[in-house]
Amino acid sequence: MSLESTFLQACAKQPVNHIPVWYMRQAGRYQPEYRAIREKHSLVEICRIPELCFEVTKLPVKQLGVDAAILFSDIMIPIGAMGLDFEIKESVGPIIASPLRSKADIDNLQVFHPEEKLPYVLKTIELLKDDLSVPLIGFTGAPFTLASYMIEGRPSRNYIRTKQLMWSDKALWTALLDKLGAMIVRYAKAQIAAGAAAIQLFDSWVGNLSVADYREYILPTMKNIFTELKDTGVPLIYFGVQTGELLTSFAQTGATVIGVDWRVPIQAARARLGYHFAVQGNLDPILLFAPWEILEQRTREILDAAMDRPGFIFNLGHGVTHNDPPVAVDTLRRLTKFVHEYTEGKISQTAARV
Amino acid sequence: MSLESTFLQACAKQPVNHIPVWYMRQAGRYQPEYRAIREKHSLVEICRIPELCFEVTKLPVKQLGVDAAILFSDIMIPIGAMGLDFEIKESVGPIIASPLRSKADIDNLQVFHPEEKLPYVLKTIELLKDDLSVPLIGFTGAPFTLASYMIEGRPSRNYIRTKQLMWSDKALWTALLDKLGAMIVRYAKAQIAAGAAAIQLFDSWVGNLSVADYREYILPTMKNIFTELKDTGVPLIYFGVQTGELLTSFAQTGATVIGVDWRVPIQAARARLGYHFAVQGNLDPILLFAPWEILEQRTREILDAAMDRPGFIFNLGHGVTHNDPPVAVDTLRRLTKFVHEYTEGKISQTAARV
Repeated sequence: MSLESTFLQACAKQPVNHIPVWYMRQAGRYQPEYRAIREKHSLVEICRIPELCFEVTKLPVKQLGVDAAILFSDIMIPIGAMGLDFEIKESVGPIIASPLRSKADIDNLQVFHPEEKLPYVLKTIELLKDDLSVPLIGFTGAPFTLASYMIEGRPSRNYIRTKQLMWSDKALWTALLDKLGAMIVRYAKAQIAAGAAAIQLFDSWVGNLSVADYREYILPTMKNIFTELKDTGVPLIYFGVQTGELLTSFAQTGATVIGVDWRVPIQAARARLGYHFAVQGNLDPILLFAPWEILEQRTREILDAAMDRPGFIFNLGHGVTHNDPPVAVDTLRRLTKFVHEYTEGKISQTAARV
Repeated sequence: MSLESTFLQACAKQPVNHIPVWYMRQAGRYQPEYRAIREKHSLVEICRIPELCFEVTKLPVKQLGVDAAILFSDIMIPIGAMGLDFEIKESVGPIIASPLRSKADIDNLQVFHPEEKLPYVLKTIELLKDDLSVPLIGFTGAPFTLASYMIEGRPSRNYIRTKQLMWSDKALWTALLDKLGAMIVRYAKAQIAAGAAAIQLFDSWVGNLSVADYREYILPTMKNIFTELKDTGVPLIYFGVQTGELLTSFAQTGATVIGVDWRVPIQAARARLGYHFAVQGNLDPILLFAPWEILEQRTREILDAAMDRPGFIFNLGHGVTHNDPPVAVDTLRRLTKFVHEYTEGKISQTAARV
């Protein structure tokens, strides 16, 4: 992995030659090669076979020319390792047979040792570390989002059971979040030790909380997690959708890079974050299904708005969306190339003027 | 209807004796009386039988002590009147047999005369006007949200077809939005003529657009609608969820009251709106399922933050949520009473100090 990585430079708010690019869910069903693998293997099987997971993680790097790889995995993998059995149901999502319902259920969750329970994840990272030409981003879900899957037992629209536990038994909620926090720290550290050059915490659904609830029920655990991970020295990316109003609180977590969805203009995000953070985002993923001219225009607008300060990583505002027909691989390749060339041009012009 | 209505006073940013309260979807399945009616009549039947619709609209006013009634209706009613057949499928939502797919489909939509096509809606309003002790809020969906139902044909997670039309054929998109705008103006004016004292435009799903897309593809139509409705003199409420980043644009629409969801702190909403607007909201509707102490605490926080300026209407951040077990009617009654008493106390203290 090059020390000159534009991705790592941008995370550190250092000067770059071009704006780095990667895409959430850059490995997935839009790729014909991935679909071919999925005909023989389930998603969880891919995660559990290091050689296969290695190939799937690498594929978009080769195909798209992105500046970072992200470990191919599923947000449910550590939930399974904590002791909750799950299955991923086609066009529904993750289903947990016995969702968390009691203190005993929460007491039974194991803050596992990744080396014992998820050796295949670490093995995949080791394979990738020796092979990739770009940094590898490790990942895990963040406590609220993991808790919501564990309590609801399936994808939810309103998180009613999760919020009910949170509001009705703060001690139990805190016990659950602290346990998840301890697991996340251990899992992230193991990924970093195996070779991950950055960690992204996906708090995909935390944007369903009011600011007051986030501050009371989530922020303390997030501070603990990022404090524990600080000494690893790697960029710590924190991302969720619909989190515009939470950004002033995100600024207090200790994360070093904040990912935002397409709703939040980058300048508004930076203002709320107090300008101390690298920012990642935020093209509406549905724009990948738009005519190229519109996609290019909106991308240019984001880059123009974001490039007045160092510390920007181009990404989508959420993962590549499954659809039939899928996004064309060529669209993502062309987009990567456009961001690289457009921003390289702008940066060299600015340098010439200085 | 009393000229002294606290609801209308708050909409006009005038002094009030207490903060007015109403709830989105305050008539609905959480009420045993409503469930009893629904055993005999479908939702659409209730909308079409003025005497029944009158009873359903009135029920929460009597039961909860709220300061405004909202016409019981469905967002799909004017879509049906435009010529698109729909059915409302239990636990799925509205389904359109033949969603909009072509210019011809859009050309075929009728900007109907409400007196001809929806006489039962107007009749219901006339019955209510002569009976209610509080103002009646009329309503209709706003163009993006209506268009999304018409194009997707069913509730959507990502609005991919809607956005694709918007981006790929701006002329056709504009034709559709203008047609919806003309319908909305006519429908709202007819409701006002029949006796509605205010109009709320539900743009429930517009918060899925980036600021750039809202400004380019939606704002012009919204300006036209509110300009056309301005002379009616009634409060014009504009509401959507996940619209925090759109508020600076909402401030340019010509709406007079802005509804916000529970994600946006009221003070942040007011700051982005430039302090020119009455604001309505914004308790997380899931808090109705929380222990009373938490519900009361979050309500008090909203009121404390909102009451430093005139022009606030207490509401939920979205409609009362269907759930099993449902919200207790008593919870909403108690909440209304709490808001009235707490704010009356604060206002009389302030008056005493002056």
